[in-house]
Amino acid sequence: MSEKKRRAGAAAAGPASSSKKPRASAAASYAESLRSKLRPDASILSTLRSLASASSSKPKAAAKPAADHDPSADPASSYIVVADQDSASVTSRINRLVLAAARSILSGRGFSFAVPSRAASNQVYLPDLDRIVLIRRESARPFANVATARKATVTARVLSLVHAVLRRGIHVTKRDLFYTDVKLFGDQSQSDAVLDDVSCMLGCTRSSLHVVASEKGVVVGRLVFHDDGDRIDCTRMGVGGKAIPPNIDRVSGIESDALFILLVEKDAAFMRLAEDRFYNRFPCIILTAKGQPDVATRLFLRRLKVELKLPVLALVDSDPYGLKILSVYMCGSKNMSYDSANLTTPDIKWLGVRPSDLDKYRVPEQCRLPMTDHDIKVGKELLEEDFVKQNEGWVKELETMLRTRQKAEIQALSSFGFQYLSEVYLPLKLQQQDWI
Amino acid sequence: MSEKKRRAGAAAAGPASSSKKPRASAAASYAESLRSKLRPDASILSTLRSLASASSSKPKAAAKPAADHDPSADPASSYIVVADQDSASVTSRINRLVLAAARSILSGRGFSFAVPSRAASNQVYLPDLDRIVLIRRESARPFANVATARKATVTARVLSLVHAVLRRGIHVTKRDLFYTDVKLFGDQSQSDAVLDDVSCMLGCTRSSLHVVASEKGVVVGRLVFHDDGDRIDCTRMGVGGKAIPPNIDRVSGIESDALFILLVEKDAAFMRLAEDRFYNRFPCIILTAKGQPDVATRLFLRRLKVELKLPVLALVDSDPYGLKILSVYMCGSKNMSYDSANLTTPDIKWLGVRPSDLDKYRVPEQCRLPMTDHDIKVGKELLEEDFVKQNEGWVKELETMLRTRQKAEIQALSSFGFQYLSEVYLPLKLQQQDWI
Repeated sequence: MSEKKRRAGAAAAGPASSSKKPRASAAASYAESLRSKLRPDASILSTLRSLASASSSKPKAAAKPAADHDPSADPASSYIVVADQDSASVTSRINRLVLAAARSILSGRGFSFAVPSRAASNQVYLPDLDRIVLIRRESARPFANVATARKATVTARVLSLVHAVLRRGIHVTKRDLFYTDVKLFGDQSQSDAVLDDVSCMLGCTRSSLHVVASEKGVVVGRLVFHDDGDRIDCTRMGVGGKAIPPNIDRVSGIESDALFILLVEKDAAFMRLAEDRFYNRFPCIILTAKGQPDVATRLFLRRLKVELKLPVLALVDSDPYGLKILSVYMCGSKNMSYDSANLTTPDIKWLGVRPSDLDKYRVPEQCRLPMTDHDIKVGKELLEEDFVKQNEGWVKELETMLRTRQKAEIQALSSFGFQYLSEVYLPLKLQQQDWI
Repeated sequence: MSEKKRRAGAAAAGPASSSKKPRASAAASYAESLRSKLRPDASILSTLRSLASASSSKPKAAAKPAADHDPSADPASSYIVVADQDSASVTSRINRLVLAAARSILSGRGFSFAVPSRAASNQVYLPDLDRIVLIRRESARPFANVATARKATVTARVLSLVHAVLRRGIHVTKRDLFYTDVKLFGDQSQSDAVLDDVSCMLGCTRSSLHVVASEKGVVVGRLVFHDDGDRIDCTRMGVGGKAIPPNIDRVSGIESDALFILLVEKDAAFMRLAEDRFYNRFPCIILTAKGQPDVATRLFLRRLKVELKLPVLALVDSDPYGLKILSVYMCGSKNMSYDSANLTTPDIKWLGVRPSDLDKYRVPEQCRLPMTDHDIKVGKELLEEDFVKQNEGWVKELETMLRTRQKAEIQALSSFGFQYLSEVYLPLKLQQQDWI
């Protein structure tokens, strides 16, 4: 830490700024009193160290990803598991599929693809695995059938395009793929859908096909990795952070001395923590997808969790969408259910801002927002979701939210001072191990 | 360049991939024939070198920013020019405003702020300056008046909050600012509006107030800069690139051996160029705001242009929005007109994809999209805009677009192969100096 930063930190930890005094209310003085509850950092750090070592030795968390990554472990499995595969292996799978089709044609039987059905009814949440999976149920897509001839053609074309991309060793977007044959695909939803079919057929992740989504996530903190061979030290990425790469297979050499991963919903909170270099006080990796998580950020978080075996603590808004965002990170979204093993990060702890925090931290009434009817509907639906039901603490929090009909953003903590989040709220949460 | 990358490049430059052969059309073979028109890179580079040196010696481009940065140069100016200022200077301006108010109160006259009006009628495009500016017309905001008492209070409160932020040496978002006094501000649009008022009153940019917008831009290429003291080498940022920092005043030590800046509308094209390390073949800085330009990206581009004096070439979709995005970079948006001198980058060249390119590069019919009624309306409005009228080439292109009623995305070039953009289209454009 540079001298400049150290001084900035010391100044910030000083007496409350003049901005708060003129309107100091009971809530504000209570908020300030919480600062005195903070034990020395060394004591909080030792708490975090035991958390981190517990997480890395937990047999369940460590064993699951390994099993998930080997689809051959249970070939007769009733649900579809795709895995990351290298280009050579994907290419050879495509070759085998095409050879089989050619043989079938030569023998006079035409050709047909066996395509797993990705219908909503096939997408179920498995409590054992704690994520949404795709039930294995294949349907034939014969070329010699008026109903499926077009789709069989599109499938063959996508297979050929993916083959070309892999051979060149490049990555493309779904949009690029669509534009290579607009006449055939008609509109992008068709090539996108078949691309997901192809993932399932080949048993590999979409990123193994080298078709990537655009990235919007950023990361800072105690993390070093290689992005396409370039060494990235995330403690030296300034306030802006490092953009999370769209091509997860170009990420390698992940190293870290962090004690936990802090997953942040919004970039305003991310910016606060990055500017305050929160990770230097409490060694951690901070990342955000700036709202709804994109595939690249989910893949990246998953990689960090699996390789570093660190606990993941989440900081989201206290509203149904905060919880929904957690669910996407943890259990996956329904339309990518076949890839849930690679996209999901189980065992994320809900650090804050939780509905019970609003009273506990005396967030002023005017910083809380009334829930809309739609919010309440989404909240009630979440109560029915298996992944929520599984965690008693989450159910209680959600019930509190629905009872009080109040929500609040992370930013609401700014009412106690701009740096309250990084200087009081989060350190106290960590000290009290206040996550569920 | 690593051996791996060199090999990937060589493979990519080889014969057309198998993906194109089966559907090779006249357009595709023409597209491929353009590759043979490419002169050796050394020849294209010498073209670019003369472009870069012309740009750095052009007196107009060099002189304008300097004049813009000194508001005192023309105090009786008829339009408002705000400038970047350091914290000490902004703080002392606030102190003077507040002292004046205190004296006025003590003398029994109450207090009042003189606030520049930011009404739409005051926002005009100045052809001389080639950007939208705010006409100087101040209105009084007295506290002792039922109509303005609330707004005067909000103004005083925002001044006090900005003062606190500057004193702490931190940066906050507009949302943070709002949440520090929800009771007073009511909703965020009110504190946001007063924040813009305060910028105008103090004659400084919003970023000088240390109130920042969230960033979404990314940059790669031949650029080295410091982000909050950390040295960032943008040739070593992998495929993901470096997130453009939200706090432009923490950016320093900008260095580059690039010959031009390539401004890209969409992140898919950015990703293609980053993965292909286009900047190693043609030394350049590549940046994108991923669609509509945000303030951080505009500030960053402006800084690069002013400090490095490099030409800026833009790659946008061939539709009215592509042009609109260029206009925001070049002339500013209306609601930030008071800050246009710091946010705008004059003299951006429209490299592509231009309406005339669709025929010139024989983009297949099926990759062009019909313009909607709304597109046509926006296109016609653009024809009336001064910044378009000024550039004859742009008028012609826009007329072509409206006549053919066709638009196309950058991605449409993928129909000739995924790397056509980086291997043929852009090099040929550069070689032919085909920008307007």
